[in-house]
Amino acid sequence: MVHYLPRLDRGFSALSDPTRRGILERLGRADASISDLAASFDMTLTGMKKHVQILEEAGLVSTEKIGRVRLCRLGPRRLEDETAWITTYRQKLEARLDGLGEFLERTKGRPS
Amino acid sequence: MVHYLPRLDRGFSALSDPTRRGILERLGRADASISDLAASFDMTLTGMKKHVQILEEAGLVSTEKIGRVRLCRLGPRRLEDETAWITTYRQKLEARLDGLGEFLERTKGRPS
Repeated sequence: MVHYLPRLDRGFSALSDPTRRGILERLGRADASISDLAASFDMTLTGMKKHVQILEEAGLVSTEKIGRVRLCRLGPRRLEDETAWITTYRQKLEARLDGLGEFLERTKGRPS
Repeated sequence: MVHYLPRLDRGFSALSDPTRRGILERLGRADASISDLAASFDMTLTGMKKHVQILEEAGLVSTEKIGRVRLCRLGPRRLEDETAWITTYRQKLEARLDGLGEFLERTKGRPS
């Protein structure tokens, strides 16, 4: 397993805020400008820009300036690394718990 | 989808640090004392205690004082909420991308 991956740090950190998770869900339905997002979340433009920047640095959102509007869309990353880490972790954990269960089953009833 | 869930904030935040992910992986193999963990990660006891406390507050690690040793083990939570959030997010995203693909397929070759 990869122990140090700055992208993973930034990814999980980006997900640790409810507004940022909300922005990802919102952009999952349709692209939106920073102003749209600020209005949706009842937030100042400055506040929303900061959240979008954190998501952008984590690679979860990309933005494009079109005229006077900055359009936000999902990607290029789709939480692949975060999914992979959690999946591997849970698989290893289940394997260990299964092993423990089998051990207890085998030793059941044996004189201690 | 649940937009605000402090437990989810704490869970993702706990995962955003490579040492804390490492601790979870280590405890996934076997329970360990704070001193064991500090030695494994070449860290002071104080530094390790802080990381363990963050994992404990997120419900990912529980500790028990046995004599003079504080033993750490995984649980009670197993990243269920974090897995659920990421899975739902990715499913919705894929559904949207599929829908977009079908739309493009249907409109292909039509005069614009």
